[in-house]
Amino acid sequence: MTAHASGPAGATEAPLVVARVGVVGLGLIGGSVARTLVAAGVDVVASDPDATTRAAARDAGVRTVGSAAEVLTERPDVLVLAPPLAALPAVLDELAAALPRLVADGGPVPVLTDVGSVKAPVRAAVDAAGLGARYVGAHPMAGTEESGFGASRADLLPGCAWAVTVGPTTSPDHLLPVLALVTGPLGGVARVVDDATHDAAVALVSHVPHVLATELLNLATAAPARALALGLAAGSFRDGTRVARTDPRRTQAMVDGNADAVVGTLRDAAAHLGALADALDAGDAAAVTAFFDAADPVRTALADGVSAGTSPSATVRLDEPGWQDRLTALGAAGALVTRIGREAVVVAR
Amino acid sequence: MTAHASGPAGATEAPLVVARVGVVGLGLIGGSVARTLVAAGVDVVASDPDATTRAAARDAGVRTVGSAAEVLTERPDVLVLAPPLAALPAVLDELAAALPRLVADGGPVPVLTDVGSVKAPVRAAVDAAGLGARYVGAHPMAGTEESGFGASRADLLPGCAWAVTVGPTTSPDHLLPVLALVTGPLGGVARVVDDATHDAAVALVSHVPHVLATELLNLATAAPARALALGLAAGSFRDGTRVARTDPRRTQAMVDGNADAVVGTLRDAAAHLGALADALDAGDAAAVTAFFDAADPVRTALADGVSAGTSPSATVRLDEPGWQDRLTALGAAGALVTRIGREAVVVAR
Repeated sequence: MTAHASGPAGATEAPLVVARVGVVGLGLIGGSVARTLVAAGVDVVASDPDATTRAAARDAGVRTVGSAAEVLTERPDVLVLAPPLAALPAVLDELAAALPRLVADGGPVPVLTDVGSVKAPVRAAVDAAGLGARYVGAHPMAGTEESGFGASRADLLPGCAWAVTVGPTTSPDHLLPVLALVTGPLGGVARVVDDATHDAAVALVSHVPHVLATELLNLATAAPARALALGLAAGSFRDGTRVARTDPRRTQAMVDGNADAVVGTLRDAAAHLGALADALDAGDAAAVTAFFDAADPVRTALADGVSAGTSPSATVRLDEPGWQDRLTALGAAGALVTRIGREAVVVAR
Repeated sequence: MTAHASGPAGATEAPLVVARVGVVGLGLIGGSVARTLVAAGVDVVASDPDATTRAAARDAGVRTVGSAAEVLTERPDVLVLAPPLAALPAVLDELAAALPRLVADGGPVPVLTDVGSVKAPVRAAVDAAGLGARYVGAHPMAGTEESGFGASRADLLPGCAWAVTVGPTTSPDHLLPVLALVTGPLGGVARVVDDATHDAAVALVSHVPHVLATELLNLATAAPARALALGLAAGSFRDGTRVARTDPRRTQAMVDGNADAVVGTLRDAAAHLGALADALDAGDAAAVTAFFDAADPVRTALADGVSAGTSPSATVRLDEPGWQDRLTALGAAGALVTRIGREAVVVAR
């Protein structure tokens, strides 16, 4: 199932190779991108505003420069934006200011991508800086409870599920290098989707789980018998609160950054929990049973070790108008990129 | 901190020994109780309505008889009720019918205890059968996603946190053997609490976490991009849904059995999630921050590896009226039983 950077069946063109990658921001994910690529023999040039972080990165074999603009000037095939979300606008302004000189000098101009956990706000920031035409979003579903370059590892990303996001006018010339990077030296699997679908999906599987974990911890904190409750807490509480136990600021930043998608899902959750309380109060066994059975299709699919839903294999030709919609519809149905070439992307379950 | 069956400091009386234990119902917990006690050299006599289960128990070195009444007739020091909650009334009726003969014949009559995850409904059932005077509740915070004797293990219970529940008229003669059993051969630590406090605490740390895990799975099931969401699901979703992935009937039975305590906590959760959605919608950063910071005292305590709250060491003399209230107030504050004797129970953090 691993995608590789060669053409679709029958294509004779040269494989897509990403030879040089820029990384701006060497935190947990940016640092792990840099380490993984260095280990894979890719030429990496990286920057971070913190001198200690740059020194640590050099010790790990990562070539560093002093600024995001200098990374751009090195003309990497792909430049990976990995600063904290709050620092992104300043980084984008710096890149936008340096870009005209690069264009005027001629030669290849880097594709921009990122690793942020929300995609619509990042695209909005990139558009606001006038860089939207060469941007393709990316988000690896990876993370630990730690942060910073010190927590980054070369084995965090390989095997990881990535979402790669495109808009209605994304060029194949920008999508393909990002897919080649993600499914090649970074060792990931990729689904191509639109930003809104991505943000709704991660609200469901990441941000709302973080909120519910926080709420469980809040309920215990407010309980009269809090000491007893925590003393009796076993597996379900430990698992259910794990992601809420560290750094509430980081959790809050994730949730704030995807507020639009999170709010709707939280309102759904509040309504469902209230309805379950009503059903338990009223002794409405059918309604209670319906709540506990609602996930049966997913429960069965997860127990079988496969993701739920089906999606056929398909080849999407990138020279046909509307390919972005066809590719993102397949990605929303769970289809993974299995093969990429200059003319087409092949996806399959 | 491990409690042991000797007198309080200065006492000279003989240690409390539980030589024979009856187990009625050989599921996951009943089976694990039997296996642990057999391994500890305690004389165990057990029953289960299923002949295959009895045969498996005999293969594991557990002496079995044909019925709950026969277990009672063997006059164990403590009889552990471990049937499914739905089967409990019939078991209690059988024991109540057999008890008069035992009393008439003279000699010791067993103390009754149980291992159920809710305590008020069990005490109500025991009272309804006329057996309340000799009942002390018990609940080990242990479980796996499996069930049945086949999943039981001798290493499931040792080290486990138990709640032991008493009422206002519980006799020391009934509490002490149960504490001796739990903190002795079963290898657990015990907090003595009242039924309502226990049921509220396990709603918080077990039943509501199971409901929230189920709701996360339900939200993903209902999502348009369900296949994408499940494909992107990483640690927070996996951890947050783990206990909802197996046997919704068992989860439902737990929640139904503790509906009174669960309903209030669910209504609190629904209100908090709705308020957070409102705050995110309104851009009310202070309210959002307050939500994410509310658990900070518990977060700090958990990070330090200690349970939150404080409770002083104390000796509760069992010959002074009102000892039950004093002991359960300490248990609600998290105090663990550290020493038991015929005259007193010592607790400490």
